[in-house]
Amino acid sequence: MEYPTSFLNLIEAFRKLPGVGAKSAERMAFDVLSMDEEKINNFKEAIDSIKNIKKCPVCGGLSENGLCNICSDIQREHKIICVVNGPKDVYSFERMKEYNGLYHVLNGLINPSKGIGYENINLQSLLDRIDNDKEIEEIILATDLTMEGEITAMYISKLLEKKNIEVTRLAHGLPMGAQLDYADEMTLFKAFSNRKKV
Amino acid sequence: MEYPTSFLNLIEAFRKLPGVGAKSAERMAFDVLSMDEEKINNFKEAIDSIKNIKKCPVCGGLSENGLCNICSDIQREHKIICVVNGPKDVYSFERMKEYNGLYHVLNGLINPSKGIGYENINLQSLLDRIDNDKEIEEIILATDLTMEGEITAMYISKLLEKKNIEVTRLAHGLPMGAQLDYADEMTLFKAFSNRKKV
Repeated sequence: MEYPTSFLNLIEAFRKLPGVGAKSAERMAFDVLSMDEEKINNFKEAIDSIKNIKKCPVCGGLSENGLCNICSDIQREHKIICVVNGPKDVYSFERMKEYNGLYHVLNGLINPSKGIGYENINLQSLLDRIDNDKEIEEIILATDLTMEGEITAMYISKLLEKKNIEVTRLAHGLPMGAQLDYADEMTLFKAFSNRKKV
Repeated sequence: MEYPTSFLNLIEAFRKLPGVGAKSAERMAFDVLSMDEEKINNFKEAIDSIKNIKKCPVCGGLSENGLCNICSDIQREHKIICVVNGPKDVYSFERMKEYNGLYHVLNGLINPSKGIGYENINLQSLLDRIDNDKEIEEIILATDLTMEGEITAMYISKLLEKKNIEVTRLAHGLPMGAQLDYADEMTLFKAFSNRKKV
């Protein structure tokens, strides 16, 4: 005998979420089963309200209405733009509490093997931003330090070469707490060649 | 800068599910964000349809309308009832594909330290079932092999002592694949005292 159909449907819906296996999905479905009507409705509304979230027309980050909270904040330094892969990365930087500039969210990275070119990511609008705003002084390339992230960063730096803007890249090196014998050769090489005077 | 409010609400809703931490909830919310309208609606409906699931008036298990699929199945042996803690346990037994009798779901276990007595669980209806159905021959006590499960099993077996019914309990012993040096003393003692002739 199987679970009732509506219960199976809910297990299936949870299983589709990232990192959720069969057992976890079952536990989640039982948790929803134990909720009262109000809690179930709140859960549904939380899911539904995600439809309110759009992309900011300037930076491509998350926004509930029009310009996002970061682009519309006049307290922030509008002369620096930090270029990231996805909206999640914006909040990783924000948690650092050290950066007060703006962002540009590419919503993807160049990946030639998957046929994702520069026209498939939110890159043209970055060039437009730079052309339209003469105040911009620095572009920080903060794409992932993976193959795709490096290709994308290199591509963008080439595009910006002739513009009078400082283009920087996140530093490579050993992460905090790293043990040398666990570091891969590439990381070790980068840490070695970028070594600093103490 | 924080995530937009509706996004934070969804993260919070996922975090309330069992076994979901902050990072997983965030990943799930981003997954929902990437869904199209149809998928979001399907997800909401899956959650909503859980309201259709009621308790079977006979066994207390999951049911979509009236009697559950097991109680209403005339192919099953109606003379054996397997007593379990929660509805999940029913499906654990069903997956075994060896048992063809009925179930009784207590939806709880007696726990004196938490003030959960026999009147707080679905037990009276088991006694009523037995009194009203003279065909019942065996009650299998399949509550967990924990303190509460054992107390509940013992309590039920006492209640059924004077009725002309066979009362059995799941066997204690070493689980399949067990290594002796990892077994706790109680399990080892049970396995030892219930040893069988080969």
